[in-house]
Amino acid sequence: MRRPETLCPVSLSTALIGDRWSLLLVRELVIGPARFQDLQAQTGAASQLLSARLKRLQATGIVEKQTYQTRPPRHKYYLSEKGAALIPVLQAFQTWGQAWNVPGAVGTGMLIVHRSCGTEVGPDGICCSCRRRLAWSELAGKPTLAYQLERMARSDAYRHKRGQGCSQSAGDG
Amino acid sequence: MRRPETLCPVSLSTALIGDRWSLLLVRELVIGPARFQDLQAQTGAASQLLSARLKRLQATGIVEKQTYQTRPPRHKYYLSEKGAALIPVLQAFQTWGQAWNVPGAVGTGMLIVHRSCGTEVGPDGICCSCRRRLAWSELAGKPTLAYQLERMARSDAYRHKRGQGCSQSAGDG
Repeated sequence: MRRPETLCPVSLSTALIGDRWSLLLVRELVIGPARFQDLQAQTGAASQLLSARLKRLQATGIVEKQTYQTRPPRHKYYLSEKGAALIPVLQAFQTWGQAWNVPGAVGTGMLIVHRSCGTEVGPDGICCSCRRRLAWSELAGKPTLAYQLERMARSDAYRHKRGQGCSQSAGDG
Repeated sequence: MRRPETLCPVSLSTALIGDRWSLLLVRELVIGPARFQDLQAQTGAASQLLSARLKRLQATGIVEKQTYQTRPPRHKYYLSEKGAALIPVLQAFQTWGQAWNVPGAVGTGMLIVHRSCGTEVGPDGICCSCRRRLAWSELAGKPTLAYQLERMARSDAYRHKRGQGCSQSAGDG
């Protein structure tokens, strides 16, 4: 590995993940594994951009791809442990947004929960129900009810748009 | 204020600050107030890009500008309380970078300290010396010795480059 150009881990980290689309993709995958079209529906990213970001996130070991159907081939994207370890970055953006972005302070997007039991996890990473410290990959984002409704509306709008103008699932890789 | 398009504070926050240059500018200003050329030297951003990012950060109340000399006019940029409240975002990127970016795990870029006494501040925001919880604006980033040396070399290279090719301080606004 080449010697890094800087000692600053903020600079090194943001070189991998410091753009809005990548951060939104990580948010989506914290909620759960997702197909290309799910990611597109929820982030609103154009196919080419989304594809490029997913490739970069895979190359840096943040995102992994799993084939769940072979004929025709269909894939799901999910976060690696390295990717799930970005949860505190999302939480920091969330806390700041709630405190300072007045127009957005109307609701929390999602809570961080223990994936298997659904209980909220404290900032110390301990499941309030199971009373043990969890690995990053055991955590998931659980959208609030209001945010779930927003997401469903977004999925519907995306399906409607695809059904009307573009029936091909070209981006579904 | 218009109704936000989403309830998700991650999406709202990253729309303001979710790009690498803005995050690096916040890092610089956490270290301390800085002139345009200091920011340029340390981030490596092109003048136009830097100027655009600073304008956006000012428009969203994250960065403020202070005139410290009138003839000729000279300004310094510094973080507002809203901007300083982004420190946990930087810390989250820093922690992730140290844990997962192997090439960068050779040194911590900076510690978060109590600006007035220089003592390190714990993750609970309490100064280890003064034993009180501090406001965001009382905190500052203190580069490690190795990172200080890296920064000095970067300043020298920038001055050298300006001295050779571009003696005008056109960007110094």
